[in-house]
Amino acid sequence: MRWPALPSRKFWRGRTAAGRREFIALGAALTGGAIFGRGAAKAAETFPPHEPPWSKTLGPGVVDRPYGQPSQFVKDVIRRNVPWLTATPQSSVSFSPLQDLSGIITPNGLFFERHHSGRADVDPRLHRLMIHGLVERPLILTMADIERFPSTSRIHFIECPANGGMEWRGAQLDSLQFTHGMIGCAEWTGVKLSTLLEEAGVKEQAKWLLAEGADGAHMTRSLPLEKCLDDCLMVYAQNGEALRPEQGFPLRLVVPGWEGNVSVKWLRRLKLGDEPWFTREETSKYTDLMPDGSARGFTWVMDAKSVITFPCPEKPLRGRGIYEVRGLAWSGRGKINAVDVSVDGGVNWRRAELNAPVLDKALTRFTFAWRWDGRPALMQSRAVDETGYVQPTVAQLRKVRGVNSIYHNNSIQTWQVKADGSVHNVQLA
Amino acid sequence: MRWPALPSRKFWRGRTAAGRREFIALGAALTGGAIFGRGAAKAAETFPPHEPPWSKTLGPGVVDRPYGQPSQFVKDVIRRNVPWLTATPQSSVSFSPLQDLSGIITPNGLFFERHHSGRADVDPRLHRLMIHGLVERPLILTMADIERFPSTSRIHFIECPANGGMEWRGAQLDSLQFTHGMIGCAEWTGVKLSTLLEEAGVKEQAKWLLAEGADGAHMTRSLPLEKCLDDCLMVYAQNGEALRPEQGFPLRLVVPGWEGNVSVKWLRRLKLGDEPWFTREETSKYTDLMPDGSARGFTWVMDAKSVITFPCPEKPLRGRGIYEVRGLAWSGRGKINAVDVSVDGGVNWRRAELNAPVLDKALTRFTFAWRWDGRPALMQSRAVDETGYVQPTVAQLRKVRGVNSIYHNNSIQTWQVKADGSVHNVQLA
Repeated sequence: MRWPALPSRKFWRGRTAAGRREFIALGAALTGGAIFGRGAAKAAETFPPHEPPWSKTLGPGVVDRPYGQPSQFVKDVIRRNVPWLTATPQSSVSFSPLQDLSGIITPNGLFFERHHSGRADVDPRLHRLMIHGLVERPLILTMADIERFPSTSRIHFIECPANGGMEWRGAQLDSLQFTHGMIGCAEWTGVKLSTLLEEAGVKEQAKWLLAEGADGAHMTRSLPLEKCLDDCLMVYAQNGEALRPEQGFPLRLVVPGWEGNVSVKWLRRLKLGDEPWFTREETSKYTDLMPDGSARGFTWVMDAKSVITFPCPEKPLRGRGIYEVRGLAWSGRGKINAVDVSVDGGVNWRRAELNAPVLDKALTRFTFAWRWDGRPALMQSRAVDETGYVQPTVAQLRKVRGVNSIYHNNSIQTWQVKADGSVHNVQLA
Repeated sequence: MRWPALPSRKFWRGRTAAGRREFIALGAALTGGAIFGRGAAKAAETFPPHEPPWSKTLGPGVVDRPYGQPSQFVKDVIRRNVPWLTATPQSSVSFSPLQDLSGIITPNGLFFERHHSGRADVDPRLHRLMIHGLVERPLILTMADIERFPSTSRIHFIECPANGGMEWRGAQLDSLQFTHGMIGCAEWTGVKLSTLLEEAGVKEQAKWLLAEGADGAHMTRSLPLEKCLDDCLMVYAQNGEALRPEQGFPLRLVVPGWEGNVSVKWLRRLKLGDEPWFTREETSKYTDLMPDGSARGFTWVMDAKSVITFPCPEKPLRGRGIYEVRGLAWSGRGKINAVDVSVDGGVNWRRAELNAPVLDKALTRFTFAWRWDGRPALMQSRAVDETGYVQPTVAQLRKVRGVNSIYHNNSIQTWQVKADGSVHNVQLA
């Protein structure tokens, strides 16, 4: 493998504060010119002198695939599960291959799955949404009814609160896909929940809403009315097209910034009440067991979090040199204000660049130019959101939460880079 | 079909200036209360008393589809071609089903195609990009080289300049998909073209760049250096994942806001020169034949344009009542400032609402609440971009351009709504 003549060292000069300092330190002996010269000399050798097959033939015509598919050469870029993680694949999770993704939009085919009773295959012509309880006018809506209400589109992430759950008791899997792959970000289109509630007429004594799914698990969660009226969406489209079955086709709730479990899929019922319902999925599950044996409930918000997506265990470094470190940051409380990167396990931090647009409760892509000198490194990223909240270390989080939790691990991830360039999932004491 | 009890008339009251006036005109006889009551009464009748199959069974587990697919119930939402439009499907176009899309992101599976020699199936390990001509350091880059340069992501539309080409001489097809479906909008990730040109070192006398594709057609276009250094991208990912083969996998140029043809796919060569090359695809094709027989060349910019996506021929109205009219607007010169909607063939205009975020050279979704009284209507939308440019009527455009053109028809589309709610493609004198 030819690696990595380019970009040249000279190219990086002056691109970042870090880069400038490093080049001054390296001195002038390593001139870019020499490297460029080598690159140019290589050109004649390596450019195929013949035309490759795709340059000499007619390919398939348009609508050969009326619904397009990825290239055969990226067939390994898929969602994956961890078979031992759950008793059955019907109540399980598939992880998104973050190591192979770019930007902030997660394509629908690779958006993580979390089912409690398998993937429901709902016929939209037969699907109904009932709104009842403490409302002036109980309603039963068809999909055609719902699509006729005023629509809105917004880009938001959805993260399963169990994302990183395997890490509470220590580093486990050498894989970005499995440590952080229960997150995705999409453009969601639908009706504001407040719009439908306005149509039904919420009674004054109503304070809570129950959302219920139509799948076999009848996933059911209680939500405070204030959040429902703030920014929740009744969604029928994701990234422009109809929701996929595994994302709740034909209708799901999207509760921006809150744990994914409350964004109920295959949504069939909304009930208004004056207190929460304390369903199985907010008592037995989706609570946080504290060191003293008590459990915190209704811990909905996904606090600020980030992770370096390159390098990572699946994408090691290939020799010393300058790299663009890449990663994702997000916060359930609003926009990301800043991301800092450390290559020495959190001793020193430098500010990363954020790729615009930085959106509310959406993934934000960050980059950071870094020269790897070939020695072991401990790479970390730390997100700061617009409320001033700073992503905690594992130690800080454990001090409060202990190690009994499954959910809401938003701690700083450490990637250990070894001298051979391989990257490993470690936890610092 | 039960249609359209909801949303109620009362619901719309006060939602728009138009809505307010209409309700005052309608008077108080039609109270929302009566309609709500009917809706509530219907509820008990129509809610399935039994559990549908998907509520009683386990669905397939996670990673049953490691790469997800749309629901079987939307199998008709596909790209389509017009067989008589071109001599072969290998040099043709497929149209995106805009009538079924939401928001501003076009999913990769439904992004329109335009090939000149069919869909190339390029092996990324063998693909090379050569940069040569008036440069200090000729380069040949592997995909690994390119991915190592600083990356950026941006949301932009790409529109084929032939979009609407069938309309120059008169209304032809009753179909939004076929009148406007040669456009898509995606989050593109790659390297700034200026970055690669900096690495190669552009010589002072260089003023133009030649971009060449690796497919059998070797699509080749000349671009002024100023645009190349401004906002062009060398793209390897679309909506988070690797480019699809039909979009140029593994590497394409994206020239924001300019005719899609110059965003060369399967990009294999960039040559710097001091004048344009006048290739086949910028002389014989992709020029605009004027009434006097001369041809305008290098007319790259896609001027401001818009279209109503609901109602449209594929999505008729289902009885009188209030509807949310929906549409898309875009401009190759920057952001959309405003969209106006007319329901009387352009006599009166009202301002539509724009859905945030409104991005540079990206699709912008607009909505407009409208009460249809059941009488024939002539619906139009008119985009205004941030330069102040106003989308022209067909008559205005023809006055300058005549009817010999194929490309760059950005005129106002008229949808004729008949009394039965059906929608037709017409042109006003």
